[in-house]
Amino acid sequence: MYFIGVDLGGTNIASALVNEKGEIINSTVIPTEAQKGPEYVIGNMKREIHKLINNAAGSKIVGIGLGIPGLVDIDKGMSLFAGNLGWQNIPVLEQFQNEFDVPVCMDNDVRTAALGEKHFGAGVGIDNLICITLGTGIGSGIILDGKIYRGHSLSAGEIGHITIVKDGLYCNCGNRGCLEMYASAPGIVRRTQKYILEGHNTVMTSMIDGDLDKITTKTLSQAWEKGDELAQLVIDETAEFLGIGLATFAHLINPEVIIIGGGVSLMGDKLFNPLQKYFDEHSMRILRNKLPIIPAKLKSESGTVGAAALAMINLGIL
Amino acid sequence: MYFIGVDLGGTNIASALVNEKGEIINSTVIPTEAQKGPEYVIGNMKREIHKLINNAAGSKIVGIGLGIPGLVDIDKGMSLFAGNLGWQNIPVLEQFQNEFDVPVCMDNDVRTAALGEKHFGAGVGIDNLICITLGTGIGSGIILDGKIYRGHSLSAGEIGHITIVKDGLYCNCGNRGCLEMYASAPGIVRRTQKYILEGHNTVMTSMIDGDLDKITTKTLSQAWEKGDELAQLVIDETAEFLGIGLATFAHLINPEVIIIGGGVSLMGDKLFNPLQKYFDEHSMRILRNKLPIIPAKLKSESGTVGAAALAMINLGIL
Repeated sequence: MYFIGVDLGGTNIASALVNEKGEIINSTVIPTEAQKGPEYVIGNMKREIHKLINNAAGSKIVGIGLGIPGLVDIDKGMSLFAGNLGWQNIPVLEQFQNEFDVPVCMDNDVRTAALGEKHFGAGVGIDNLICITLGTGIGSGIILDGKIYRGHSLSAGEIGHITIVKDGLYCNCGNRGCLEMYASAPGIVRRTQKYILEGHNTVMTSMIDGDLDKITTKTLSQAWEKGDELAQLVIDETAEFLGIGLATFAHLINPEVIIIGGGVSLMGDKLFNPLQKYFDEHSMRILRNKLPIIPAKLKSESGTVGAAALAMINLGIL
Repeated sequence: MYFIGVDLGGTNIASALVNEKGEIINSTVIPTEAQKGPEYVIGNMKREIHKLINNAAGSKIVGIGLGIPGLVDIDKGMSLFAGNLGWQNIPVLEQFQNEFDVPVCMDNDVRTAALGEKHFGAGVGIDNLICITLGTGIGSGIILDGKIYRGHSLSAGEIGHITIVKDGLYCNCGNRGCLEMYASAPGIVRRTQKYILEGHNTVMTSMIDGDLDKITTKTLSQAWEKGDELAQLVIDETAEFLGIGLATFAHLINPEVIIIGGGVSLMGDKLFNPLQKYFDEHSMRILRNKLPIIPAKLKSESGTVGAAALAMINLGIL
């Protein structure tokens, strides 16, 4: 039995043919081109699925899962709101159900990524976990008793928008001092740029030819490896912001493990070591040194494999 | 059918005979005297239950529920740790099961209080809610899909120990800057005392005959009613600490309602009005003005009625 998982992102549409073990057999990536509107994007998603079906000649495809950014009404199959796509109240699911002969289901992309990690990644065998995505934004999927937990109005797990700095930076969510403003990729870059503008000496200045816009979290990572003190400071601060935020999350949800994925997590031990330290420092004694924070295993594949996992769950196979 | 609910606290043991509608028919309160040890306390609890049974002559008592402070292992019927009682690994449940002919069950007291509010108080008809207890400490019971959520190691809902002030006051939980250090009754009193010691002019000084140890949250409440500016400042600050903490809780759990009980909640609108304001200010726009923070309805009875509700659930009646 085979499944297709589609991960719709602001930049790319990633699709994959996945087997029952969560292994990718075949995959495609195309640009999203969200500015061309939902019809165009959904048309492209369908075409990618057809491509995978055609290339899988003979293999039995039994279900399709979609991971969609933003607020998703899984019962109505609607995208209620997706800021990075410019979508609002778009009926998504019916368009796929009319096109394909197999069952199609959808959920929020961060939640499907959490499912991917739970069933085929770093969370195998664990029934209570939080899976954080650290990228352009910061989101999370909560798995309780083995199942996705969505909350009363589908907003559970909004770790990116908890107040981490009182009277801090204004966020476009309406709150201020949000974790996302400090520890997402743009937040980290912004803090780095601010330090450089203030006059700190750093190897990064030459690495980016003096052009602050060229700084990425990869620049920081490389500078850290060269022993750069400013890079160490910024990553340490990032770990502290995250450590406080994740300790808060853990005190409320009390998961068995916290899994971290997304682009920023690729910093690896440079980030995870101080993060675990700050997390434990900001935890009650009875929780300290008991909750591991571990990197996601599926990396860039968590989206498509997670969407395929959703299809498996929908069919009662997982 | 009748039930008995026992609420074991650091100060008192409250017991009640409760009918199926959650109404108290008869009740008793005796001092806990925890310093005399667990055997003595458990003996007293049994005696109170026998008293209620004897006084209920003819009424059919079908179940007993116990609300116990601290960490409770509901499967083993053990009190794993209760700081205010000095208990550690005390087998509680078997002692009651050997004594009474009807089923006995137990859970953490904050969780049973949440059950009380869910079934017979401010949360009737609501399946996803958080019930906060603001008293000597700050705890919470989380109800998801109508059931108590306990977390992986029974520590879910530890809102009192999330970091609300970075590098803030040391807490005996091992963390620092915990919400409980600022917004529990002792935290509020401590902040008031500090302001008075700094020299602020306030009607409270005469209300307490200059003895700072006499200040309680009731003093503050009365001073507020007299238009005292320091009392207003302290209550406003309390609301801000709580507003940030509860907004964080809501962003992660996304409940339908937040219920607040415990001694501090008796301040009423003086606290709830600014609390709702700060909560909304620290929320994402899509959550703002949608989540009501309401006072507990059962007040001092939530413990016993909640323990009785636990007994009803245990018997499949609720």
